[in-house]
Amino acid sequence: MPEPRLVEVRKNILKANDVIARELRERFRNAGVFVVSLVSSPGSGKTAFLEKILSLLHLQCRVAALVGDLATENDAVRLARSQAPVKQIVTGTLCHLEAVMVRNALEEWDLNGLDLLFIENVGNLVCPSSYDLGENLRLVLMSVTEGEDKPLKYPTIFNSADVAILTKTDLAQAVEFNEDTALANIQAVRPGMRVFKVSAKNGQGVAEFVDYLRSRQIALRPAAPV
Amino acid sequence: MPEPRLVEVRKNILKANDVIARELRERFRNAGVFVVSLVSSPGSGKTAFLEKILSLLHLQCRVAALVGDLATENDAVRLARSQAPVKQIVTGTLCHLEAVMVRNALEEWDLNGLDLLFIENVGNLVCPSSYDLGENLRLVLMSVTEGEDKPLKYPTIFNSADVAILTKTDLAQAVEFNEDTALANIQAVRPGMRVFKVSAKNGQGVAEFVDYLRSRQIALRPAAPV
Repeated sequence: MPEPRLVEVRKNILKANDVIARELRERFRNAGVFVVSLVSSPGSGKTAFLEKILSLLHLQCRVAALVGDLATENDAVRLARSQAPVKQIVTGTLCHLEAVMVRNALEEWDLNGLDLLFIENVGNLVCPSSYDLGENLRLVLMSVTEGEDKPLKYPTIFNSADVAILTKTDLAQAVEFNEDTALANIQAVRPGMRVFKVSAKNGQGVAEFVDYLRSRQIALRPAAPV
Repeated sequence: MPEPRLVEVRKNILKANDVIARELRERFRNAGVFVVSLVSSPGSGKTAFLEKILSLLHLQCRVAALVGDLATENDAVRLARSQAPVKQIVTGTLCHLEAVMVRNALEEWDLNGLDLLFIENVGNLVCPSSYDLGENLRLVLMSVTEGEDKPLKYPTIFNSADVAILTKTDLAQAVEFNEDTALANIQAVRPGMRVFKVSAKNGQGVAEFVDYLRSRQIALRPAAPV
């Protein structure tokens, strides 16, 4: 149970985060870069999915990724195999990314040289929901191995996200995953939420999601100056 | 990046938590109840594992469970099928259990009537590590579907735990889980950590873990008054 003083300090932190997130959003818009963040439990397959879509997108447009973790640069090493520029943000003991970390990580990058930027958050279904990172689109990933009830148990993160990605669908049968129940649970907490079903292993649904992302990115591209 | 004032307030919160955790530990010792907490990612199989061991332990001694979640009483309903007394702690937006919540939840329970008490934390591999709940033994669960690298990426939670439980071993082959790598990663962050490999689905390793728990509980039982 947080004490009143902690609540107050947290509000200030969140407010400071929102100010930086707004600045970031403005910079992203001016540079014409479409920014997509990914949140999920640890082990839901964010990095495998991102590696897959970076490899495909890398052939179509200019992509890059930031990836957050408490420790290790493992994910950046994995993602760099896609040939896209990647930077790791090590958060230490902090359980989520904040806008200021994104701003610092982007210091040496020229945003004008990018069409799409991905931000992979720390694996955590709770805390990242409170922190705006200036992104255009927030994806919440949930693997079939986690069970069908996660949207009901972690409603805030589903509510703060725009699109849900059901990952590891190649394992659905092995874990007796009930897709209807899972989809109904997503709709119960976030009516109308779009859901993609993907497998980074056998490629199911990946091309469809990449097409969707490209259409969103192209639609948001600023008009050329006349 | 937390600001200095948040750090200071967090320290006070943690200190207040430690005071209550100490009181709880004292009460648990006086009542002769052995307390085991479980931490893991969302969807690692804490509840399925706990349901399995409660069903077995229920026949051998007096067990009960507290279970934390942001929303829903689903887990308490599932665990109650074991016939053991179960109480749900709904944390709202809070991403971990704190000692005060455990104290409040235990208000109506007579600890003298228990041999073993389980506390299932909110699914989160980061924040629960900082909060002592007065437990005797902290288990960190990690499912084979999450990949081998979780100990390296979330070292603090492995360091704050006493025993690791590798869950969903029935799926190891389907997900091409590399057990040697996972075990080496656990030892890298917590040398000497004992690891149990279990499957709540096919029962593998469950009886062995129950025996271990009983031996720990019996060893810590206070000597009868002379």
